Amino acid sequence: MKSPAQLSREKVLRDPIHNYIHVQDVIILDLINTPEFQRLRRIKQLGTTSFTFHGAEHSRFAHCLGVYEITRRLCEFFERNYPSQNLGDGLWDNSERLVALCAALLHDIGHGPYSHTFEHIFQTDHEAWTQRIITDEKTQINQILRQVSPEFPAQVASVINKTYPNPQVVQLISSQIDADRMDYLLRDAYYTGTQYGMFDLTRIMRVIRPDKIGIVFDVEGMHAVEDYIVSRFQMYQQVYFHPVSRGMEVVLTKLLQRAQFLYQNNSLSQTEMPHLLIPFFKNQVTVDDYLRLDDYLLNTYFNLWRDYPDPILRDLASRFLDRRPFKSITFKPDQHDLITQMQAWTQNSGFQAQFYTAINNSFDLPYDLYDPHAAEPKTQIELRQADGELLELSTISPIVKALSGRSSGDHRFYFPKEMFQNPLSNTFEADLSAFQAHIKNNALQ
Amino acid sequence: MKSPAQLSREKVLRDPIHNYIHVQDVIILDLINTPEFQRLRRIKQLGTTSFTFHGAEHSRFAHCLGVYEITRRLCEFFERNYPSQNLGDGLWDNSERLVALCAALLHDIGHGPYSHTFEHIFQTDHEAWTQRIITDEKTQINQILRQVSPEFPAQVASVINKTYPNPQVVQLISSQIDADRMDYLLRDAYYTGTQYGMFDLTRIMRVIRPDKIGIVFDVEGMHAVEDYIVSRFQMYQQVYFHPVSRGMEVVLTKLLQRAQFLYQNNSLSQTEMPHLLIPFFKNQVTVDDYLRLDDYLLNTYFNLWRDYPDPILRDLASRFLDRRPFKSITFKPDQHDLITQMQAWTQNSGFQAQFYTAINNSFDLPYDLYDPHAAEPKTQIELRQADGELLELSTISPIVKALSGRSSGDHRFYFPKEMFQNPLSNTFEADLSAFQAHIKNNALQ
Amino acid sequence: MKSPAQLSREKVLRDPIHNYIHVQDVIILDLINTPEFQRLRRIKQLGTTSFTFHGAEHSRFAHCLGVYEITRRLCEFFERNYPSQNLGDGLWDNSERLVALCAALLHDIGHGPYSHTFEHIFQTDHEAWTQRIITDEKTQINQILRQVSPEFPAQVASVINKTYPNPQVVQLISSQIDADRMDYLLRDAYYTGTQYGMFDLTRIMRVIRPDKIGIVFDVEGMHAVEDYIVSRFQMYQQVYFHPVSRGMEVVLTKLLQRAQFLYQNNSLSQTEMPHLLIPFFKNQVTVDDYLRLDDYLLNTYFNLWRDYPDPILRDLASRFLDRRPFKSITFKPDQHDLITQMQAWTQNSGFQAQFYTAINNSFDLPYDLYDPHAAEPKTQIELRQADGELLELSTISPIVKALSGRSSGDHRFYFPKEMFQNPLSNTFEADLSAFQAHIKNNALQ
Amino acid sequence: MKSPAQLSREKVLRDPIHNYIHVQDVIILDLINTPEFQRLRRIKQLGTTSFTFHGAEHSRFAHCLGVYEITRRLCEFFERNYPSQNLGDGLWDNSERLVALCAALLHDIGHGPYSHTFEHIFQTDHEAWTQRIITDEKTQINQILRQVSPEFPAQVASVINKTYPNPQVVQLISSQIDADRMDYLLRDAYYTGTQYGMFDLTRIMRVIRPDKIGIVFDVEGMHAVEDYIVSRFQMYQQVYFHPVSRGMEVVLTKLLQRAQFLYQNNSLSQTEMPHLLIPFFKNQVTVDDYLRLDDYLLNTYFNLWRDYPDPILRDLASRFLDRRPFKSITFKPDQHDLITQMQAWTQNSGFQAQFYTAINNSFDLPYDLYDPHAAEPKTQIELRQADGELLELSTISPIVKALSGRSSGDHRFYFPKEMFQNPLSNTFEADLSAFQAHIKNNALQ
Repeated sequence: MKSPAQLSREKVLRDPIHNYIHVQDVIILDLINTPEFQRLRRIKQLGTTSFTFHGAEHSRFAHCLGVYEITRRLCEFFERNYPSQNLGDGLWDNSERLVALCAALLHDIGHGPYSHTFEHIFQTDHEAWTQRIITDEKTQINQILRQVSPEFPAQVASVINKTYPNPQVVQLISSQIDADRMDYLLRDAYYTGTQYGMFDLTRIMRVIRPDKIGIVFDVEGMHAVEDYIVSRFQMYQQVYFHPVSRGMEVVLTKLLQRAQFLYQNNSLSQTEMPHLLIPFFKNQVTVDDYLRLDDYLLNTYFNLWRDYPDPILRDLASRFLDRRPFKSITFKPDQHDLITQMQAWTQNSGFQAQFYTAINNSFDLPYDLYDPHAAEPKTQIELRQADGELLELSTISPIVKALSGRSSGDHRFYFPKEMFQNPLSNTFEADLSAFQAHIKNNALQ
Repeated sequence: MKSPAQLSREKVLRDPIHNYIHVQDVIILDLINTPEFQRLRRIKQLGTTSFTFHGAEHSRFAHCLGVYEITRRLCEFFERNYPSQNLGDGLWDNSERLVALCAALLHDIGHGPYSHTFEHIFQTDHEAWTQRIITDEKTQINQILRQVSPEFPAQVASVINKTYPNPQVVQLISSQIDADRMDYLLRDAYYTGTQYGMFDLTRIMRVIRPDKIGIVFDVEGMHAVEDYIVSRFQMYQQVYFHPVSRGMEVVLTKLLQRAQFLYQNNSLSQTEMPHLLIPFFKNQVTVDDYLRLDDYLLNTYFNLWRDYPDPILRDLASRFLDRRPFKSITFKPDQHDLITQMQAWTQNSGFQAQFYTAINNSFDLPYDLYDPHAAEPKTQIELRQADGELLELSTISPIVKALSGRSSGDHRFYFPKEMFQNPLSNTFEADLSAFQAHIKNNALQ
Repeated sequence: MKSPAQLSREKVLRDPIHNYIHVQDVIILDLINTPEFQRLRRIKQLGTTSFTFHGAEHSRFAHCLGVYEITRRLCEFFERNYPSQNLGDGLWDNSERLVALCAALLHDIGHGPYSHTFEHIFQTDHEAWTQRIITDEKTQINQILRQVSPEFPAQVASVINKTYPNPQVVQLISSQIDADRMDYLLRDAYYTGTQYGMFDLTRIMRVIRPDKIGIVFDVEGMHAVEDYIVSRFQMYQQVYFHPVSRGMEVVLTKLLQRAQFLYQNNSLSQTEMPHLLIPFFKNQVTVDDYLRLDDYLLNTYFNLWRDYPDPILRDLASRFLDRRPFKSITFKPDQHDLITQMQAWTQNSGFQAQFYTAINNSFDLPYDLYDPHAAEPKTQIELRQADGELLELSTISPIVKALSGRSSGDHRFYFPKEMFQNPLSNTFEADLSAFQAHIKNNALQ
Repeated sequence: MKSPAQLSREKVLRDPIHNYIHVQDVIILDLINTPEFQRLRRIKQLGTTSFTFHGAEHSRFAHCLGVYEITRRLCEFFERNYPSQNLGDGLWDNSERLVALCAALLHDIGHGPYSHTFEHIFQTDHEAWTQRIITDEKTQINQILRQVSPEFPAQVASVINKTYPNPQVVQLISSQIDADRMDYLLRDAYYTGTQYGMFDLTRIMRVIRPDKIGIVFDVEGMHAVEDYIVSRFQMYQQVYFHPVSRGMEVVLTKLLQRAQFLYQNNSLSQTEMPHLLIPFFKNQVTVDDYLRLDDYLLNTYFNLWRDYPDPILRDLASRFLDRRPFKSITFKPDQHDLITQMQAWTQNSGFQAQFYTAINNSFDLPYDLYDPHAAEPKTQIELRQADGELLELSTISPIVKALSGRSSGDHRFYFPKEMFQNPLSNTFEADLSAFQAHIKNNALQ
């Protein structure tokens, strides 16, 4: 591997979370300046969340810089305090720094607009796209990475894929307490204006350390780690799973499904075609197709669709652009028959149930133990005692134990706000009444 | 005027600057929910500034809510402490509250995408559009305002127009120290991650008071007002006039000018037409045309233009989307001949000077005295002594005196970064050398 | 009850936590200006904690103002949103405002210097003293309160005593989530420079409400309440129970015990007498005696004791003033015999065990259910659903459930740092070796 | 000079301003642990200011750590970016690091309680005492410094004395923009809860650099430096010169003068003697005498004086402890005759003018040019252009120019609040009336 060049003078980017992002390597500056990376400026970090928390309009661009910066500081801290003396001593080998920094910077390069929703409809996967963009020889990112060595792009991709041999590097970027999560919790808390995501990053960055098994934490820092777990849990419950943002997400889903439906039924004229979406409708997407997508493009199609003849497409596009979310109630998994009934009443009231109702279940696992048989085995959080022995976090934190291995979230049924109208003044009196009679305390009865 | 309805329970919106935005009136909630107001979510507050300060991706939507909230708190403070007892006593008449709140909320409703640049090219004016949107009977905003009274839209528009009879209301929304400026300074400082815009809003909101001549400040608060003036000055120098953001603004200007040029020269095929921009190219714009515009639409056109045959359009579109700003040097007003020469060398080096060079002068007047003969007479800031006598701010603050009546900013000449290339390895050796020989310490020699 | 006078103009005190403390009532201003309340400036809020967190030098004075301010804002919020319409409707009766404000302001008036330590040695009790100072006719506080009505002092005292009939007032000042705790968590977090104590006060102040049973919270605010419980738990574990601060507390305890011992053994000459402490040595303390005490007085005695003939008193005084804390190890309750042995080795090494070793156990109950048979029954936290039904917090929060009814803390054995010296170079070789052999990983073996 | 030992593992102290104070050298840790340095915990940073801003109870201990930390970071930044290559190149010679750190840490070691007031009365000088404590062989500080080399204490003292040969080291600790001022502005702003002292430390720490003439700043950072100058100006006007804090300072002055007066007139009995103050009354002070003094001792004497027979001493002690400041009015220098008259009326109203009235003039020079003929020549602030040329700050900043060489502050006359009483109900009717008649708008007429 060629020794990478340093900038003659460090560059800094002002950042509200980390104060300054420090760029010291030519290659990092070059990666930031690629069209692929600049595209992230046009993709919101939190999708429809800004419809609930209007301050949260930040992009994935800023987040990626933040993950890079945390990783950079951790490498510097490791190099200063835990430099490897000989192979296999479990300490930090600074020749890993560059692959860690590149993986940190690029870990979200494969995100598209409103990823969660978009991936679900069009069967794309942002992690797979991240690896593809890194390893595809036509991207500028790939070309810059290849300057380090021919294998370097694949190495960076393997960190994201978690197959890179050094577990320290993998866990810095992707584990239950990694640079990615640490940045997004602080950043999303700052931009939403809530405080749930605040935790003591400075303290965590002092108790973190490399170890043979990967990344561990000095036991004195237990409460700082515990606090981070709780912060993440709170952000999921309070911000990421907010029912109103999900109500907008449902509108978005239905809108894209309607467009796909119209395309598949040949109901769009040539001038109405959303050309840059067609590869996705057809499920034949090149890297180039993928990189054209951003929030701006989707919203511009929605803007244009306001004029299209299809009334459902027009209506859903306006609901999205004008922020008129679907409403919701919670329900229990054993109430699925009743949901079917609710959908029928909605349909009878003039709303095609396929495009005007939805089930949205949002659950997160705040913390989990390592289980080799799990679909995605988690690296558990280990605390290191004075004599080097490790303790798994939930064995000494009752709070983490309470959250461990236990999904948190809710099941929600979404429908148009109009279903709450006064039945008596309405053509669909009986159906509206039946619908409304099954709701109490915002839950399905 | 019909007494406006209160919400049965106050609604709040979380805001990073003001903690909560409090909505108490039905009409305010309805205005926020109009398509015209929701459109502001799709227009960045600071245009190209986020290319320099990546955190500053906030929209005009959030700012407008902030201006509303400051105004709401001030009305509440005035009503509690300075309620008018009889006509003409110079105290606060709370029947002015609603017009003030609506004007505050809607004061930027006429902003389009990248206003500064866009207005300059297409001769639009956001203040005129604000008034037009408020008073045009087809907008939802107008319809909601008319529920108060038939004259209410015109009254709200007249506050923005500064012709509303009550000077207190006008100055709350628009003066040298108004709710607009107070919100944007704090908000832009927060989102850029700088601290220059911070000032003591809480203190100012305690020393502000109504007076016969409009809005004045208790003299004890002089230093808080002074600090605000300095903060604003600093934000202009450090953030709003940043040479790199202006380098992106220049790219944007040239890009839109090129598109207009191609349109006017009939060089665009039918499928290439940016249909929603044509009314602007033709200078025949309806309210409906205007409200279709947003940042998303413009950037999507730029995205599409990357594929168009015209090489200049393609190149400029990529420079904008991929953030490759023009570079700049400062110059003095008497160096215009030399600028012409620099443009010639640029042209000779392969860049059409019309679309690849620009002059950009940014100046602001941090504070000014009232001058009835000025083009836009300023309401000067008055401080009230214990006995009611008023003192103009700059008479007691040497700092404000130093800034008063004196424009601050610079003259810059912009050109492609390629003009900095090594001349020796280049076809355009002589011109590049001549060009570069006239630059020293980032200034024209 | 006489209607209390309002100040002609509200006064404000700048406060780093609440921005401004607003004083609106003459009686509140008068109470703040009493010598008894001003004395709180001379008593640190966190005692020996500032020896660990050097930023935490704030006084009880600031905290008491903060508790007052939170209470004031809550009363205002209740009055605006939940005004009682008729007796017994469970809503807020604003005639309770003044008693609530006075109790909030005065709830800590009975604190002495280093209360925890001091009370333990001299069998005083700050809550009893608070009531005594309020009800003793000779204090200025009592005289001011009596201006409201002859019964008013007793009413205020009964709020602190929790016997006041209105449970809303009692719980505002004293419950598992009260104005006292809310202020000290935020304030101590700010001054220590940690973030563990941060929680979302603004959100809690929107979901709190009066109810027939006292104070409850809207169920939508569950996570904000949960976050507060976790913050408090974290502050106890990370800040209040810090082993080094407790090491200073132990030095302080031993120092005061030595002084008392010398007094009781008539070993102090007349000029050496700490006159203002004698009433405490004798356990005959008047209100006047009590109010002379403050941190300044104690530390000045320590300063003087540096010159006294008794070597133990001199040594302990210097250890305290020069910040040389005792060291500690954790132990398990069943290791008491071994502790006795450790004390013997310490004694053999030249340190009188009575004055140079100590056991310090610090435990807190983060949350508990109401138990009528408990020594101090807790008012549990209730969440109110849309239909008015109440849910106890731990039934819906797994985190709170994990912390509920379960004490957290540790047992520590304290001894001089000198016990860690190298035994080989030491007269007390055998005892030091034996002592040190029983310590591993900072715990007793 | 012996190469100083590094700690095996860096220690950190939590700090609200700088997050962590990093201690890396054995000698720095040892200095912090001396009794002389720990004494600074018992001396408030802002003296009587906490009577106005109740949050500002922080000590000189925390400030000294902060100055040390800023200096440490600057040395690290200089070493990384501007390491000296050969003697006299004007870059940073890292062998200066330790003397800079020690001088930073110890620069305020000679402060006594309420320095400003105390020094004025007893003709002590904290800078002289700082040097004496450092160079006196009996102090622990001196003994620790001598471990580096026999000359090291004198070198550290010469930095404080500004005679140390390297101007970079001197200016880091003491200049118009030094580590001392940078820390106290931020710290005092944080603890008072005001924002005037906030400036962009991070930015300044990026543009600062060593130069042959000392410390200079990159010209790009001009506005950050300008902002710092304005912040400092604002803190003086808004916080440090607050009339109420000065009203308490006047009470303190009079109280100490009265005690000295009684001592000099042999009016104190043996048991009443404030023994530890006698050396100051006699002006025969040893280092040991000096180091016994702290805020605690003074306030304890005041506490005891409440019982002394002298009515003036008792009264002034109570005014101070109970926070009853003298009131004030501004006056102009040419009104001295009238002041004499005001004093006479005060005397006639029952208050000995010598102990109940005072003139207090507070002025600060926000910025000044270098003037070799000045009493204390200032090192002016120089900005460095790309080509190395220096520009003096006020030549390019109109704000700094406005403040340059111009003292800001006011003249105030202080007297007891009782002089504002209603004359009609008073024995001293005529004098009170005359007194009051000369006051208008809080100024002398």
